[in-house]
Amino acid sequence: MLLPLPIQNLIEKISKLPGIGKRQATRIVFYLISRKEELREIIKSLSLIEKEIVICPDCFFPFQKSPNLKKCPICCHPKRNKNIICVVEKETDLLTIEETRKFNGLYHILGGLISPVDPQSYKNLRIKRLLERIKENKIKEIILAFPLTPQGEITSLYLERILKKYQVKITALAKGIPSGGEIEFADPQTIESAFKHRESL
Amino acid sequence: MLLPLPIQNLIEKISKLPGIGKRQATRIVFYLISRKEELREIIKSLSLIEKEIVICPDCFFPFQKSPNLKKCPICCHPKRNKNIICVVEKETDLLTIEETRKFNGLYHILGGLISPVDPQSYKNLRIKRLLERIKENKIKEIILAFPLTPQGEITSLYLERILKKYQVKITALAKGIPSGGEIEFADPQTIESAFKHRESL
Repeated sequence: MLLPLPIQNLIEKISKLPGIGKRQATRIVFYLISRKEELREIIKSLSLIEKEIVICPDCFFPFQKSPNLKKCPICCHPKRNKNIICVVEKETDLLTIEETRKFNGLYHILGGLISPVDPQSYKNLRIKRLLERIKENKIKEIILAFPLTPQGEITSLYLERILKKYQVKITALAKGIPSGGEIEFADPQTIESAFKHRESL
Repeated sequence: MLLPLPIQNLIEKISKLPGIGKRQATRIVFYLISRKEELREIIKSLSLIEKEIVICPDCFFPFQKSPNLKKCPICCHPKRNKNIICVVEKETDLLTIEETRKFNGLYHILGGLISPVDPQSYKNLRIKRLLERIKENKIKEIILAFPLTPQGEITSLYLERILKKYQVKITALAKGIPSGGEIEFADPQTIESAFKHRESL
């Protein structure tokens, strides 16, 4: 192989990142090699993340290390309702919900969903810590905010079964016509749910 | 914004890499934050590239720095034909051609193609060094090996016009039916060229 070993190694590592294949990894590596200034900037940024960013031991959202901060700003915030936990698949789901400013409780980032084709996939989820939090902090309600996909539905069912043993209310986000949504394009399941849970005006 | 500044900065930088948008950059950054070991490995690999990989001053292919090596292994190789230069768009084109072992000359990585919508795009190409190489090294033939796209065709025409002022034979890769290609699916241009340049058997 004509490519120097350090280049081969880097392509290998970058092609393991989410959504990147070998071809794109190769393009990225050659791009960086011919732009050393940009490469140095990325190394600096990555090193800063490595040193300064830690993961909240409660909700698993990343935050900047600081001597007085043991948890993330959300979990620490004095005005948040600490009796409700909204469980989401990933960090970006939390960010989208936070941007609405319509939820004032705490979060729990599960770190993935159960895959119907991989029955062992539940083992990688942060379920154990969720159960500890429920016990430690007198949680009254758990909101399951998963995508309405087969993976999301299976994860909801699985967590529901486990959480039933705890003294906690379990809810899920409402299923219905989204804002701006056309009725003619809505699928049967959504329409069924929108009728069943129709609101009084 | 809820996201710590170092995370925002890194997302910004990663979203500038080829083929990566803001959404994917965000996913990659969160992925790395929760896998510090992998993150450290990538920092190490990138730093090695930064320190040890340099770009050949002749053909622009990257190679590993070494006290005795002023050029890349291809440009230095005693058995390569130093009178022919094959001009390619990018590093991966060179790799694909090298893997066939059917070309024994030198290369020149142009670093891109001229875009029909950006007339200034020729300025980023490594044309000046190509012309210097032709003068310095008594080059006899330049093979233009660009993709048969509008960008590739425009770049070929542009280089042809410049190179005509030099004492050098200009050729291009043959256009025809690719190996394994069906006649019924070939486009009119390819068929026309395949007839025009038909080979005697």
